[in-house]
Amino acid sequence: MENLGYYCGSYGLIEDMKIPMNDRVCYFGDGVYDATYTANHMIFALDEHVDRFFRSAEQLNISVSFSKCELKKLLQDMVNKVDSPEQFLYWQVTRGTAIRNHAFPEPDIPSNLWIMIKPGGIKDIYQKFKLITVEDTRFFHCNIKTLNLLPNVIAKQKAVEAGCDEAVFHRGDRVTECAHSNISIINNGVLRTAPLDNLILPGITRGHLLDFCRENKIPVDESPFSLNDLMGADEVIVTSAGALCIAASEIDGISVGGKAPELLNILQQSALKKFQQDTCYNSCF
Amino acid sequence: MENLGYYCGSYGLIEDMKIPMNDRVCYFGDGVYDATYTANHMIFALDEHVDRFFRSAEQLNISVSFSKCELKKLLQDMVNKVDSPEQFLYWQVTRGTAIRNHAFPEPDIPSNLWIMIKPGGIKDIYQKFKLITVEDTRFFHCNIKTLNLLPNVIAKQKAVEAGCDEAVFHRGDRVTECAHSNISIINNGVLRTAPLDNLILPGITRGHLLDFCRENKIPVDESPFSLNDLMGADEVIVTSAGALCIAASEIDGISVGGKAPELLNILQQSALKKFQQDTCYNSCF
Repeated sequence: MENLGYYCGSYGLIEDMKIPMNDRVCYFGDGVYDATYTANHMIFALDEHVDRFFRSAEQLNISVSFSKCELKKLLQDMVNKVDSPEQFLYWQVTRGTAIRNHAFPEPDIPSNLWIMIKPGGIKDIYQKFKLITVEDTRFFHCNIKTLNLLPNVIAKQKAVEAGCDEAVFHRGDRVTECAHSNISIINNGVLRTAPLDNLILPGITRGHLLDFCRENKIPVDESPFSLNDLMGADEVIVTSAGALCIAASEIDGISVGGKAPELLNILQQSALKKFQQDTCYNSCF
Repeated sequence: MENLGYYCGSYGLIEDMKIPMNDRVCYFGDGVYDATYTANHMIFALDEHVDRFFRSAEQLNISVSFSKCELKKLLQDMVNKVDSPEQFLYWQVTRGTAIRNHAFPEPDIPSNLWIMIKPGGIKDIYQKFKLITVEDTRFFHCNIKTLNLLPNVIAKQKAVEAGCDEAVFHRGDRVTECAHSNISIINNGVLRTAPLDNLILPGITRGHLLDFCRENKIPVDESPFSLNDLMGADEVIVTSAGALCIAASEIDGISVGGKAPELLNILQQSALKKFQQDTCYNSCF
């Protein structure tokens, strides 16, 4: 199989899959998701992504009718069906199927589980990203991985149209995160990244980055930083499951970073090692 | 036919309709909608709702492959197929069908048109609403009628759980609108309603309410008002295509309004008359 779509027990090629018009995703984006990458049919950081997925669902009172282990087993089964050795693995749960009404449907209506797998590996970690900055006009639930992603879509499209890789959100002067990544800076030997509040997603790879800092005695400062801090940083680092730990060389057409290559290299080596370790490890099987 | 689902040229009972898993609504809520009511198979304020729909699509750079008149004709054709003489008429356009990627798909991919019609008439205008207040944590694009409606869903659910009809959003002290309605107050003979900015939807029925005020020499003040203004108002009025113009008698369990019944009655009579006129009028046919 070249790719895979799964919906409530049925699966097939994504382009052939259909879902009910009354799935609440169609009217409200009423669901949450998570995603990671695979290599050699092994899933990167599966436990952590599944934990966050369950937390997202719980934060929106979406009942999930399966256990974490059942989900992990299903994800692995589906990954095994797709031929490509490197895949983007995506799954979501939506608040059931019911005629359109804002309020939740009856509690006994089951939620819907979706899986989507397409070929695609992690990015070249040693490339340099070009970024643009975009005012962060999103809602105040950015800590939940929801399917309400229009501002992220618009920001990413702006980046693409500017010939860039990602868009950095800022609320006024405060840098939050990117359209689909977290962002951190290194300055004077300290790694600085926005604190975990309702303005950013608690990125799994962001968490790994902080682990690597602690392992390597690099001080961490989880406090808000500004656009000026970003533009003047020794290094600017974008993290996500697909990017792992990629440095930026340009923001809004202005050169940035490149002034702490040794520290950057330590973090990138750690990230690659972690990815390689994790894709050979799976606690449920 | 008891109800109707329409998707890109196919139609049938909503519960039988399926849509592609790769419609961008499924991953991003990437679309806009509009909705109104019908009576005797005549559509209320169709021109204005279709105008707003096209504006919403344009604001998100969603290309629409049909003209306003073509859409109106199609909506009327679909309304005629549903037996119920009173209907909720809903339509949306999504940014095409493509494998999941935040950035827009290729420009030549057509957008997808959806229609959904279910039995249901306008509400009893003389009932009194009970409301709750909810902090407005939505994004800063509330002027666009998008499918990113999770905070609205959550707020409406809170209202239902509190035994209430609607939830009033406020950003800090400033009242914005309701989960799926606009809100206005009457105080000292003046109708006050939030200004049209990116914090509220430019409600069609809100616009009618202002017209009725002008026709009846009731002064209008389109400036932000506070929670205190709301709680102490002579009347609190909720407007939407389905509610038309319903007064509230209670907010967060505290009695409100009821102190300007003559003015309220003038506005309610005007709203009912407008609905009756509009459901016998259709400029395209």
